[in-house]
Amino acid sequence: VLISAGGRPTLGRMSREIPGFHAVIPAGGAGTRLWPLSRAGHPKFLHDLTGSGRTLLQQTIDRLAPLTGPGGILVVTGDRHVSAVREQLPEIGAADILAEPSPRDSMAAIGLAAAVLVERHGDVVLGSFAADHVIDGTEAFEQTVREGVAAARAGYVVTIGIAATGPSTAFGYVRSGPSLGIAGGPGARLAAGFTEKPDAETAAAYLATGEYRWNAGMFIVRAEVLLDHLATQLPTLHAGLRTIAAAWDTPERDDVLSAVWPSLPKIAIDHAIAEPVAAAGGVAVVPGDFTWDDIGDFDSLATLLPAAPDGTLVLGQDALVLRVDAAGALVVPASGRLVAVVGVADLVVIDTPDALMVTTRAHAQQVKSVVDVLRAEGRDDLL
Amino acid sequence: VLISAGGRPTLGRMSREIPGFHAVIPAGGAGTRLWPLSRAGHPKFLHDLTGSGRTLLQQTIDRLAPLTGPGGILVVTGDRHVSAVREQLPEIGAADILAEPSPRDSMAAIGLAAAVLVERHGDVVLGSFAADHVIDGTEAFEQTVREGVAAARAGYVVTIGIAATGPSTAFGYVRSGPSLGIAGGPGARLAAGFTEKPDAETAAAYLATGEYRWNAGMFIVRAEVLLDHLATQLPTLHAGLRTIAAAWDTPERDDVLSAVWPSLPKIAIDHAIAEPVAAAGGVAVVPGDFTWDDIGDFDSLATLLPAAPDGTLVLGQDALVLRVDAAGALVVPASGRLVAVVGVADLVVIDTPDALMVTTRAHAQQVKSVVDVLRAEGRDDLL
Repeated sequence: VLISAGGRPTLGRMSREIPGFHAVIPAGGAGTRLWPLSRAGHPKFLHDLTGSGRTLLQQTIDRLAPLTGPGGILVVTGDRHVSAVREQLPEIGAADILAEPSPRDSMAAIGLAAAVLVERHGDVVLGSFAADHVIDGTEAFEQTVREGVAAARAGYVVTIGIAATGPSTAFGYVRSGPSLGIAGGPGARLAAGFTEKPDAETAAAYLATGEYRWNAGMFIVRAEVLLDHLATQLPTLHAGLRTIAAAWDTPERDDVLSAVWPSLPKIAIDHAIAEPVAAAGGVAVVPGDFTWDDIGDFDSLATLLPAAPDGTLVLGQDALVLRVDAAGALVVPASGRLVAVVGVADLVVIDTPDALMVTTRAHAQQVKSVVDVLRAEGRDDLL
Repeated sequence: VLISAGGRPTLGRMSREIPGFHAVIPAGGAGTRLWPLSRAGHPKFLHDLTGSGRTLLQQTIDRLAPLTGPGGILVVTGDRHVSAVREQLPEIGAADILAEPSPRDSMAAIGLAAAVLVERHGDVVLGSFAADHVIDGTEAFEQTVREGVAAARAGYVVTIGIAATGPSTAFGYVRSGPSLGIAGGPGARLAAGFTEKPDAETAAAYLATGEYRWNAGMFIVRAEVLLDHLATQLPTLHAGLRTIAAAWDTPERDDVLSAVWPSLPKIAIDHAIAEPVAAAGGVAVVPGDFTWDDIGDFDSLATLLPAAPDGTLVLGQDALVLRVDAAGALVVPASGRLVAVVGVADLVVIDTPDALMVTTRAHAQQVKSVVDVLRAEGRDDLL
């Protein structure tokens, strides 16, 4: 404990490190419901969506670096994003950015990171945190991770259960069972099961029981535990990833990657590991009492931004937005043009150099349908 | 009467000419409620707002040229628009485009044209028709003009009363009195008075009497009659315009213009002539039973455009507009970018290279407030 200039006790940089803890950051996902702000070539995680001056990816690293210490973070991303990721994260060594030749979903990404970690560092504890989530509450987040690491050391696959602020239908839920009585992880409980996005009635019923939390898709687990589960559930995927990892830091990497990677099955870690292992009693949930959002759509983005005095929500240069009677409207003036909005409460206007999206916050989920049409029409230039 | 190829009798070009009739086209007005489509530097009349392939100015000339014959049209416009007007109207001689050094409202513009016509042709009949109105119904329009010319020859200031299609609050009204029994102008009646834009209740009451029509701001009058009224009502303006007109086709034009023009009073022809002369029994109204609109705002523009099968109204390249659930929405994709609209019935989206306007058809009148703000902020680049 160091004493800051203001005289209040504060945690020093070194004291926050969790020994043997590594962070894995899967940086993928197109964010199609945030089109045309988020694009396949410049997805959500590369954007500053909160007006903080840091992109979501940078904020994710800022949050985790104090816990891992230097060299403790691996970013897994697509080939096409490597240069942008390097540019945004000068503090991450080139070897710690793993480039996937093609998207193979979250199990391959996190499994690859786990296997590379084992090759490089042995059986460390890894925590996987998406590059495009927003978290507010550093201290609570760190406390949760510490409890999660304790439970992971005890052999569990640990998921973080976020305290729900309402019966959201946009998130999955995790149900907590009995306490596991883990030293250093007093909040850890057995995960009694997962549910995907429920309807509003079901979600409300969940919350009334007091047993359900939002499943934020963050996992903490020992690398060998994860790989063992993978070997059981998906032996081919496991073998492929082990082979690739063994070659990763050698001249054979590219040859092995091109031989093995394209054949790996596409599957999410939730289906590959979390659900079957939970059914067998191997998953723990630790409570996360911090604010969290995955900014799934423009309505969600609007709720995260501070409102101007007139009630509008502007991401970008405020001076570019001329508004009259537009409370609750989200405006993103990202082309440099003047954007005038008149009499359009709760509207969404996303102005980019080559495409414009106008919808309402209530229709935010339907933005995906535009991307579907563009894809069907072969408009890859706009995706 | 000629016989067309199809065998039906039709009016030949020469037979449609009205001897001694000249058209005056005041081409001015910023069209601020159509911003950012209409700009001070490229106003409404220079645009093709109906998707016909011809601008409003060109359509106005197309409508009148058969009635006046060659050399029978004068366009009065601002200095800054002369080159655009010439480009759009190659058939109009350079001498027939009168350039105003600065805007002095409609009385100065039409009065100047009348005085120049007298200098060049003597006491002809002139018809003044705004460059930015939309008219559908050539035959009815021509019939009305013929009746108006007959009434003008009898010494009246003639206004055209449009058959109202509903109790509009966007237009002024003219009340018809007793028939004037003019040969060649059987529909001409005494104009019993003008009212500016009424409220909806008043407008409905007007229409119930059967005596009221929309005042479209079109006037037909002998040039000397107009100038005599002007001499009575506004002797200084009359004298100034006569002086300028006498110098117009001489080397002194510029000197006289710069000496006299800036001092001319700004006044609309309605207030300067129509209202006081009507009170004295000198104004006639002829019925216009054609479709007419002044495209005052985006709601009005939307009603003039043909709807796509999904109910959207697109002015411009239809392929640029990707829409989902947007019936009644007006979209003008004028920047070349893709415009996606999702769940926005009756919205208005005007996409131009340097400014974007998003509003609703119900708020169309408020677009002017944006222009007011930009003017107050000195954003002349966007006006």
